[in-house]
Amino acid sequence: MRATAAVFRGVGQPFDRVSWTLPEPAGREVLVEVVACTLCGSDLHSIHGRRSVPTPSVLGHEILGRIVAFGQEAPRLDSAGKKLAEGDRVTWAVVAHCGDCFYCHRDLPQKCERGFKYGHEPLRPGRELSGGLADHCLLVPGTAIFRVPDGLSDAAACPASCATATVAAALEAAGPLDGRSVLVIGAGMLGVTATAWSRVLGAGDVITCDPSEERLALAAAFGATRSTSPSRLVETVTESTGGRGMDIALEFSGSPNAIEAALPLLGTGGTLVLVGSVFPTRPLSVDPERIVRRCITIQGIHNYMPRHLQRALEFLARNPQYPFDSLVSSWQPLGEIDAIVGSDLAKQALRVGVRPDVHGSPAVASGLSMSG
Amino acid sequence: MRATAAVFRGVGQPFDRVSWTLPEPAGREVLVEVVACTLCGSDLHSIHGRRSVPTPSVLGHEILGRIVAFGQEAPRLDSAGKKLAEGDRVTWAVVAHCGDCFYCHRDLPQKCERGFKYGHEPLRPGRELSGGLADHCLLVPGTAIFRVPDGLSDAAACPASCATATVAAALEAAGPLDGRSVLVIGAGMLGVTATAWSRVLGAGDVITCDPSEERLALAAAFGATRSTSPSRLVETVTESTGGRGMDIALEFSGSPNAIEAALPLLGTGGTLVLVGSVFPTRPLSVDPERIVRRCITIQGIHNYMPRHLQRALEFLARNPQYPFDSLVSSWQPLGEIDAIVGSDLAKQALRVGVRPDVHGSPAVASGLSMSG
Repeated sequence: MRATAAVFRGVGQPFDRVSWTLPEPAGREVLVEVVACTLCGSDLHSIHGRRSVPTPSVLGHEILGRIVAFGQEAPRLDSAGKKLAEGDRVTWAVVAHCGDCFYCHRDLPQKCERGFKYGHEPLRPGRELSGGLADHCLLVPGTAIFRVPDGLSDAAACPASCATATVAAALEAAGPLDGRSVLVIGAGMLGVTATAWSRVLGAGDVITCDPSEERLALAAAFGATRSTSPSRLVETVTESTGGRGMDIALEFSGSPNAIEAALPLLGTGGTLVLVGSVFPTRPLSVDPERIVRRCITIQGIHNYMPRHLQRALEFLARNPQYPFDSLVSSWQPLGEIDAIVGSDLAKQALRVGVRPDVHGSPAVASGLSMSG
Repeated sequence: MRATAAVFRGVGQPFDRVSWTLPEPAGREVLVEVVACTLCGSDLHSIHGRRSVPTPSVLGHEILGRIVAFGQEAPRLDSAGKKLAEGDRVTWAVVAHCGDCFYCHRDLPQKCERGFKYGHEPLRPGRELSGGLADHCLLVPGTAIFRVPDGLSDAAACPASCATATVAAALEAAGPLDGRSVLVIGAGMLGVTATAWSRVLGAGDVITCDPSEERLALAAAFGATRSTSPSRLVETVTESTGGRGMDIALEFSGSPNAIEAALPLLGTGGTLVLVGSVFPTRPLSVDPERIVRRCITIQGIHNYMPRHLQRALEFLARNPQYPFDSLVSSWQPLGEIDAIVGSDLAKQALRVGVRPDVHGSPAVASGLSMSG
């Protein structure tokens, strides 16, 4: 048996189809076959050179798998305490952690000093199967694995291990939402997820802001009580809060303009959670007196802890009223990854998914419009 | 019987000695005689025009009093549940709050929409005795009163209701300190208090930074494990943390340069608590990507909640090993307030105290050197 991956060798180079002997999981390792992998925005940034990753590597970190085999010492319970068996559909935290380093002791397993980050590791002998753009993945010791609830579609579950779990971390940072006013900046995958989840957590007004009309319509479908372009944001917040300002702002765009616009819209005691700023930008200009007199909190969130992935799966399973399925525009063949990442669809859709079990040319696979 | 206050009429005008008939406390009011009042930095800013306050008003909000009489409905228990009686030495939270407005419901009683802020209120009939630069103070309904522990000196207790309680709020915002590295910026009243308290809470290295040699020596007396001038700060932090950066930075200087220097010295997961920025400055330049990738929290603190004043008194009473007494350089006569606020001492000492029961010229009272 062989395992095959689409290896990323660098910007502008085609993906390289490489195969290895399918590994036998040892010790606490678990071997999974990849069911599906959705392309996160940061995968596309890496592929197009807007973000640096080690090469050669196997990209893809929003992964759904099915357990093939357990190493002898691998736990048969998932990180939520549920039984695990061969054939189970699972997902796992993007960073495997040691549990015993400086950052693990500080409740920052995502910054583990011995961490192993799926979709971000250089190829190393015995650890080649480290990303989702492959037909198998070898889960290393310290990986927080979760069984995916049966009722949850592949499309809804696949982005959980990056997008949805990161939103869970952002909402934890925001504190209790019950009755609070929430501003969501950016109506991409994370923004619409945060919109829906804020409503489920009992938020009052949830104002979602994005320059795209299409994305504002999507935000409405995900429960935004008001959606607005940046040009009408001040007016909308004033109307909604009677001038007091928002309790919470969740920032997913990474735009310094958007962050600077959001800060003065926070009310006294307000919290701004920064999530989108994962690429270099100009610095923010921030008035410290306002931060102090208004008792403002600004909190940066990067990746998440295992409990957030658990909450993400529970949230998705319990809230079928929101069309999370629809956010993955189509499933494309892994073998056609070069065509997929260059397509208009990859630029426009919130998520494009790839599956090793879909075959044929991407033109045949539903929904993919080629950029030429 | 009359009550007398030193009324502040505006920048550059002498204080005006005004007296009224001593009020009979009604309803939930409590009448106290003022034992002592320490001049907070913000009082001096107001007096010298660097900060605006309503006028005419009675300044002074770090106040120690002795109960003279209770209104018929005034509680005979303090806010910590201890019995209160005539003659008890007490202090109280700087903002009296209604308990039922938008901000009170958000656990921000210090921002109460119907709040009454001692030392910051314009003179109003029946509410003239609202500040510490007077021989009496009339405590209004909603004031969180605390009995001062017997063993605590006037000098140690007097700044509690502003300086120490604000430090309590800052430390709560910083989260658990046990084993954490703490950077304290600014070794004034709040900075040295935060230094000592961080040690008591089990912090590891506590690095206190100030440009003044004298204040660094003071910080050492208050438990700083390292004290450093700004020019050696980076080196000191690198040495202390092995390059990982600080867990917590507590900012009391309000200097944008200091804040911008501190931000890159925070480690992953670090928290910066801003306290000192209570006057207008140039904006800060902040790299949002760093905030996100390092999971940094920035939290503004302004004033405090009643529980923080309770903790402040307990902390001071339980930690006589630190020379809090010495921070009030001398007790001066209330009647000589004009000379006091113009003196070098007021500029240089961490706190100058005034007492209605001290008489004579300030030159006679110990320690006051006149600026001419």
